[in-house]
Amino acid sequence: MSNPTIHGIIGYTITPFSADGQRVDLDALGRSIDRLINSGVHAIAPLGSTGEGAYLSDAEWDEVSAYSIKKVAKRVPTIVSVSDLTTAKAVRRARYAEEHGADVIMVLPASYWKLSDAEILAHYAAIGDSIGVPIMLYNNPATSGTDMSVELILRIFKQVENVTMVKESTGDIQRMHQLKLQSDVPFYNGCNPLALEAFAAGAKGWCTAAPNLIPQLNLSLYQAVLADDLNKARELFYRQLPLLQFILKGGLPATIKAGLRLTGLEVGNPRLPVFPLGEAGIGQLKALLSSV
Amino acid sequence: MSNPTIHGIIGYTITPFSADGQRVDLDALGRSIDRLINSGVHAIAPLGSTGEGAYLSDAEWDEVSAYSIKKVAKRVPTIVSVSDLTTAKAVRRARYAEEHGADVIMVLPASYWKLSDAEILAHYAAIGDSIGVPIMLYNNPATSGTDMSVELILRIFKQVENVTMVKESTGDIQRMHQLKLQSDVPFYNGCNPLALEAFAAGAKGWCTAAPNLIPQLNLSLYQAVLADDLNKARELFYRQLPLLQFILKGGLPATIKAGLRLTGLEVGNPRLPVFPLGEAGIGQLKALLSSV
Amino acid sequence: MSNPTIHGIIGYTITPFSADGQRVDLDALGRSIDRLINSGVHAIAPLGSTGEGAYLSDAEWDEVSAYSIKKVAKRVPTIVSVSDLTTAKAVRRARYAEEHGADVIMVLPASYWKLSDAEILAHYAAIGDSIGVPIMLYNNPATSGTDMSVELILRIFKQVENVTMVKESTGDIQRMHQLKLQSDVPFYNGCNPLALEAFAAGAKGWCTAAPNLIPQLNLSLYQAVLADDLNKARELFYRQLPLLQFILKGGLPATIKAGLRLTGLEVGNPRLPVFPLGEAGIGQLKALLSSV
Amino acid sequence: MSNPTIHGIIGYTITPFSADGQRVDLDALGRSIDRLINSGVHAIAPLGSTGEGAYLSDAEWDEVSAYSIKKVAKRVPTIVSVSDLTTAKAVRRARYAEEHGADVIMVLPASYWKLSDAEILAHYAAIGDSIGVPIMLYNNPATSGTDMSVELILRIFKQVENVTMVKESTGDIQRMHQLKLQSDVPFYNGCNPLALEAFAAGAKGWCTAAPNLIPQLNLSLYQAVLADDLNKARELFYRQLPLLQFILKGGLPATIKAGLRLTGLEVGNPRLPVFPLGEAGIGQLKALLSSV
Repeated sequence: MSNPTIHGIIGYTITPFSADGQRVDLDALGRSIDRLINSGVHAIAPLGSTGEGAYLSDAEWDEVSAYSIKKVAKRVPTIVSVSDLTTAKAVRRARYAEEHGADVIMVLPASYWKLSDAEILAHYAAIGDSIGVPIMLYNNPATSGTDMSVELILRIFKQVENVTMVKESTGDIQRMHQLKLQSDVPFYNGCNPLALEAFAAGAKGWCTAAPNLIPQLNLSLYQAVLADDLNKARELFYRQLPLLQFILKGGLPATIKAGLRLTGLEVGNPRLPVFPLGEAGIGQLKALLSSV
Repeated sequence: MSNPTIHGIIGYTITPFSADGQRVDLDALGRSIDRLINSGVHAIAPLGSTGEGAYLSDAEWDEVSAYSIKKVAKRVPTIVSVSDLTTAKAVRRARYAEEHGADVIMVLPASYWKLSDAEILAHYAAIGDSIGVPIMLYNNPATSGTDMSVELILRIFKQVENVTMVKESTGDIQRMHQLKLQSDVPFYNGCNPLALEAFAAGAKGWCTAAPNLIPQLNLSLYQAVLADDLNKARELFYRQLPLLQFILKGGLPATIKAGLRLTGLEVGNPRLPVFPLGEAGIGQLKALLSSV
Repeated sequence: MSNPTIHGIIGYTITPFSADGQRVDLDALGRSIDRLINSGVHAIAPLGSTGEGAYLSDAEWDEVSAYSIKKVAKRVPTIVSVSDLTTAKAVRRARYAEEHGADVIMVLPASYWKLSDAEILAHYAAIGDSIGVPIMLYNNPATSGTDMSVELILRIFKQVENVTMVKESTGDIQRMHQLKLQSDVPFYNGCNPLALEAFAAGAKGWCTAAPNLIPQLNLSLYQAVLADDLNKARELFYRQLPLLQFILKGGLPATIKAGLRLTGLEVGNPRLPVFPLGEAGIGQLKALLSSV
Repeated sequence: MSNPTIHGIIGYTITPFSADGQRVDLDALGRSIDRLINSGVHAIAPLGSTGEGAYLSDAEWDEVSAYSIKKVAKRVPTIVSVSDLTTAKAVRRARYAEEHGADVIMVLPASYWKLSDAEILAHYAAIGDSIGVPIMLYNNPATSGTDMSVELILRIFKQVENVTMVKESTGDIQRMHQLKLQSDVPFYNGCNPLALEAFAAGAKGWCTAAPNLIPQLNLSLYQAVLADDLNKARELFYRQLPLLQFILKGGLPATIKAGLRLTGLEVGNPRLPVFPLGEAGIGQLKALLSSV
């Protein structure tokens, strides 16, 4: 199994829709991908939470997946998020993404009925067995409804060969401490306002939609960490923190799409019931973007 | 708008699958519906949490919806659960169910991204505007990830004309107290171990999958409440409580399907990642069923 | 060990202070006790949460304890609440109360450092060993910071001979269900807005400060339950619920003291940092009292 | 008002008891203070959570307070923790400590009845008005039962002149981010496993009992942060983290007292109901101490 080195700033793409919300706008998607890569991000992650993967039909999901991978064209690694309520559908998506050239598959165990540890492990094993590329395990109880303990994560890491990375989005830095003390699994931060501390704790990368709007600040923070310069990293972090808090609180699809529109790239609105950013929010976002 | 009187024991159906899990077994579904109605339940609710509605493809959902309504054939009211991540898809399902004869539509605001009160209200309004039958609002944060406050529920009740009933499944009896003190909306209990207290607090009905296994006990509890006989209601409640706790803790699809199998009706297993009930659980369930 | 039958409405006393807050006003205390007993409550409980037991000096605590027991004079049982951070001090208070004639000692395991189950058990055992009267175990994590699981409560009940009753104040009715299913320990409700459901679930009594203000409604609810009349119990419960919610939300010492003042019995204010009820609150309380 | 610069490693003292637990062992207390100061800590904090301040009688509290301040003898600043359920008693202790030479008073708003923001503010204002030395506001809901929001903390900071520092012990790094973004109040970390990240976020000091056992590691971490060397700080942090987690989980009085005994300083046991560290725990602690 090839294992690309995933590190640094991992940029999440939005999924642009046509004005009536009915169609995916692939052209706008392509432009947003090019922007991210040109800005210097170290990897591209389509169809994550920001990418409204959960709100797409199967056909749309396939379309966005295949198009994104092709558009990235190996300039950087592509990490495709796969999340579905049934194991069968998650396996199908993982295979589809692998066949179309995904470098890494990210798996969030979505749930309706609460899952036991054994059920989650079996879910990861079934996906792992069906593909040959590495899997980044993704823990985000706020969206998935399933909180994987550090013990469970490490059990999966040991038992499912191609689970080789962990994205932790609980925002609880102690989880990263435990991963570090108890294993050598590379971990990545998925909680924007924890960016500084996650790097301090040894995170290998930061999974974030922020580079759609402020790539240079995101990248500079990572560079300061690599340069072992804590004072500079702190200063850069606090400079971007108000924006990071804003996009988290306002919802990533709504705020990132509004922000891209402000910078001249029309990507449509999120799908209902998620509202687009309101007038007041757009004003705040404008102010935040011009102040950084 | 016709508004059927929904009250008493509202029986939830499972969705039977073929042995390989690939196909819905409509014949078994029909038999399970007949059993429920023959036992005396006051309404039938297909495609709820117990019915694994969230784990079906769109085509399967339509199939189960149409078949269930036809099979019930107005012997009792049919309440079809509609829950989808996008408003557009939820509207489509609600219309489909209405067109096929559903008496009531139950709406749970499923979420991936957390929804604001305004977004939830707009979701209900969009569904309400698109159909002519009554809506039972369903609050169950444990599965939907969205907790609707009593204030929000009453706002929706006031603003969306065909939202005329509330199913409360938080298990917090104080929510029912608030509904009772602040409105005259009929409320229904969706938390099995709260059955006695919800009736004491004035719930008009109990939404439950238990009648698949112990219909007489469920119905007798309701009769005792109607007869104003608290001592008898308490005695009947504690008699069935161990089973109610067991099916809740073990997961309704897994335990109800195992229980139906024990009574001679083969309905297959839940879909992965949800496991079927294990050997130990089947033993416990057998003991519980024979002791009531 | 004598074991008085504790049941029904257990009235909690406030601790009146002089106008400057420096002194306990024993005369007012005596009058409040007489009022409660004359209204018909089945037991008197001094020095509980309502009685600001935690805010008294040792000398004041002893004074209130001895005076209350003497004033009740066995007209009904007296249940003295004993709660202290160290086991040694809790033992001293329990002995003091027993020596002065308390019928029952209520023990809340107050904590600063979180206590393990073994530490809590040892605390109860030490108090139990030092006195000869029954103990009512009191679980109220909201004030004590210690939540005792049903398993722990039943372990203490089995291992400490004179722990013979449980007061449950979490407000979680499922705790009472577990107590009922797993033991024959008499349980008492300490959460005012749960009064109806606790009785429905089989609670033997209701520990409440409300009889200082609305004794007839509290007693009538209990009588309706004894008479097996659920409809009447429900009607009586909802009649008093707004007041029960008000005194809970406003804080019992502040609201009960304000209410007693409204009825002509001056008992001073709570001790700072707890504020007396403000003007707006007094207005609401007046309205609530005149509407019941 | 003189305002000593508090920074770096602020060492918390235990309160030694005689073998029978009845008496404070001032001699042992003196030796533990000398050890801390000789090791290089930047301030001494008696009577905190570790110091079992809440478990002492008033006379003992006065004795420990006066003795500690005298023993420190201005070699470093002394920060005396004052926490009491009533405002009157907290004021008395604050004055006592000031009169005996405390440089800073630390105030934790202990509660039995939940306090409103206005009540907490008035509590701080009353203490602030009664003394002339600076106050470090202390937020630790796990022990006090009162969680002060960042908004409330900043209101108190603005309105009570001598509240000039904040000790944050929730373990939620986002609280520190908010303090930093919204004010220039110096903040200190009171959550041991958050030491690295709190310094990364800009904390001016670390309030900790760990220097009783591993002062060099604690101090080196602070030095690495001052030297802007993130890699070294991270390495030093993970080296001491297992011990920091152990003393937090085991309870500071129990583990620190056991650790001091292992290093030859007998300080007795915690007061019941808090247990001394058991045999297994002592074994783990020994192993942890010898591995760092």
